[in-house]
Amino acid sequence: MTILNAAVVGYGNLGKGAEAAIQAAPDMRLAGIFTRRDPAGLATDSPCYRLGDLPDFRGSIDVCLLCGGSATDLFDQAPWVAGMFNTADSFDTHARIPEYHQKVQASAAPSRHAAVISAGWDPGLFSLHRLIMESVLPQGSTATFWGPGVSQGHSDAVRRLPGVLDAVQYTIPREEALEKARLGQAGALSPRDKHRRVCYVLAQEGADTADIERQITTMPNYFSEYDTEVHFISADDMARHRRAMPHAGRVIRQGRTVPEHGQLMEFSLQLSSNPGFTASALVAYARAAARLARRGETGARTVFDIAPALLSPRSGAELRAELL
Amino acid sequence: MTILNAAVVGYGNLGKGAEAAIQAAPDMRLAGIFTRRDPAGLATDSPCYRLGDLPDFRGSIDVCLLCGGSATDLFDQAPWVAGMFNTADSFDTHARIPEYHQKVQASAAPSRHAAVISAGWDPGLFSLHRLIMESVLPQGSTATFWGPGVSQGHSDAVRRLPGVLDAVQYTIPREEALEKARLGQAGALSPRDKHRRVCYVLAQEGADTADIERQITTMPNYFSEYDTEVHFISADDMARHRRAMPHAGRVIRQGRTVPEHGQLMEFSLQLSSNPGFTASALVAYARAAARLARRGETGARTVFDIAPALLSPRSGAELRAELL
Repeated sequence: MTILNAAVVGYGNLGKGAEAAIQAAPDMRLAGIFTRRDPAGLATDSPCYRLGDLPDFRGSIDVCLLCGGSATDLFDQAPWVAGMFNTADSFDTHARIPEYHQKVQASAAPSRHAAVISAGWDPGLFSLHRLIMESVLPQGSTATFWGPGVSQGHSDAVRRLPGVLDAVQYTIPREEALEKARLGQAGALSPRDKHRRVCYVLAQEGADTADIERQITTMPNYFSEYDTEVHFISADDMARHRRAMPHAGRVIRQGRTVPEHGQLMEFSLQLSSNPGFTASALVAYARAAARLARRGETGARTVFDIAPALLSPRSGAELRAELL
Repeated sequence: MTILNAAVVGYGNLGKGAEAAIQAAPDMRLAGIFTRRDPAGLATDSPCYRLGDLPDFRGSIDVCLLCGGSATDLFDQAPWVAGMFNTADSFDTHARIPEYHQKVQASAAPSRHAAVISAGWDPGLFSLHRLIMESVLPQGSTATFWGPGVSQGHSDAVRRLPGVLDAVQYTIPREEALEKARLGQAGALSPRDKHRRVCYVLAQEGADTADIERQITTMPNYFSEYDTEVHFISADDMARHRRAMPHAGRVIRQGRTVPEHGQLMEFSLQLSSNPGFTASALVAYARAAARLARRGETGARTVFDIAPALLSPRSGAELRAELL
């Protein structure tokens, strides 16, 4: 088994998950954690370095796991790192993926590195399922549901409101909508039909909670298209919500192979730690990135481009004998 | 979109499903159905030919879907066809896959064809999930459940008993076992814990039904390790059981990214026609076989070796923009 030297770039929740996932991988060694903060200040026994020192590690790192945020870090950081190393990231701003793919490709291709982008669970494993399900059942409809779980983007949107000290937003799929999707009626479902939203808010003392609630429920793009509940809670209760990072979701496709034969495919996740799971997916795709590069298959890649055997440390013969 | 000429080899239930699935594919044309029976006798409007005439179609068929039985036809037929054409099959005798892979490889590689083997749902899509799930969550346990649905192999085993005119065997997963698998306790489950078996039997007039029941429930490999119910039914009831070919199944993996974080992945199918769905998976992998061969990637392949984008008629840019 070839041992891969893997580096973690960024040490938030995802970076911590990546550190643990690399340690759990039978074929990986943690080459180091790279951070913009003071490396001496990170609460870990792993070797830590300044992000700016990353270029000095050329030749000794097989793949970098990019664990920065999609909104802020990755758009510039990924092309920079992919010019020096193979990379895997979980860039998750769906609407900007084509643009991001192009930027990473422009750096990874000429430098002959493999850069796997958007390889978390959505985008990532859920995308894979949307593709496989549609390919096997071309006549049908697919629906993706998220939750019950915390949506980071929606929580952030509430936190930005004046008078709000902290907030957590749970996305909750509606049972009736899951049933409709399983019957092949996903096409008829509006955003409001599919999910509801529940916000827990820690307000400043004396803040106008009725006004905060109104601002949340009418917020365009985030809440106005949904039924949203708002609960004001104490700092202690908020601390409890902030500790757990559970999430869940499912992809459902119902299709017909002939008009009288309905066929149903469903993939679901139930996660007690969203960043821990995302990091584990990232490690599997980082393994694939290092292997692709060794074969000369470089440039920006997505989960669609990667043969599943590349995700596993086991040999082809072993996989055929034991998992096929 | 490149149009692929696809042929169906064998016209039982799977072959009929393949004919329909090719007609449903936006990028495929049915080149013909090849049969060992009298082609004029097949109940279809599609062009039908004698199997022995298949070699005459070299150059005009992009891929052959091999729809014969694993037990009887494929072991010899697949190497023969893969020496002339790209192929996809759903060979499902798990224990013989390594040997089958080698036989098909020995024919497909030198003739420069791509032959995708064992590409139904199990082996096939379920294998894919066992691999992806284990790669993402290396610390954990996977369980595969089949049913509720008809198992062809077990039905055949009952049909071979003296005094039995016809039989259908349903495999039924136990709810308690599904729950244990979701809690990460799959390793502790015996075959008897996971599934029970129900047989419907049409006996010859005057047959000793108590003895038939005893022979079924004590049959090694097939029934002795399970709790099995046997029901003797009328010819009319048997006809009803024989018409429907529903099946179902699920792959469950529970793993831990760190000791305190349990993470659950689950993939399930609920099929109103087992051969119809298997044929649809086969068509997606037949598309991949034709594309692999065009790139020069020939030889025997499994679902593990195939990048998911090859399954879809859509372009990479379209997939990234719409499904990622």
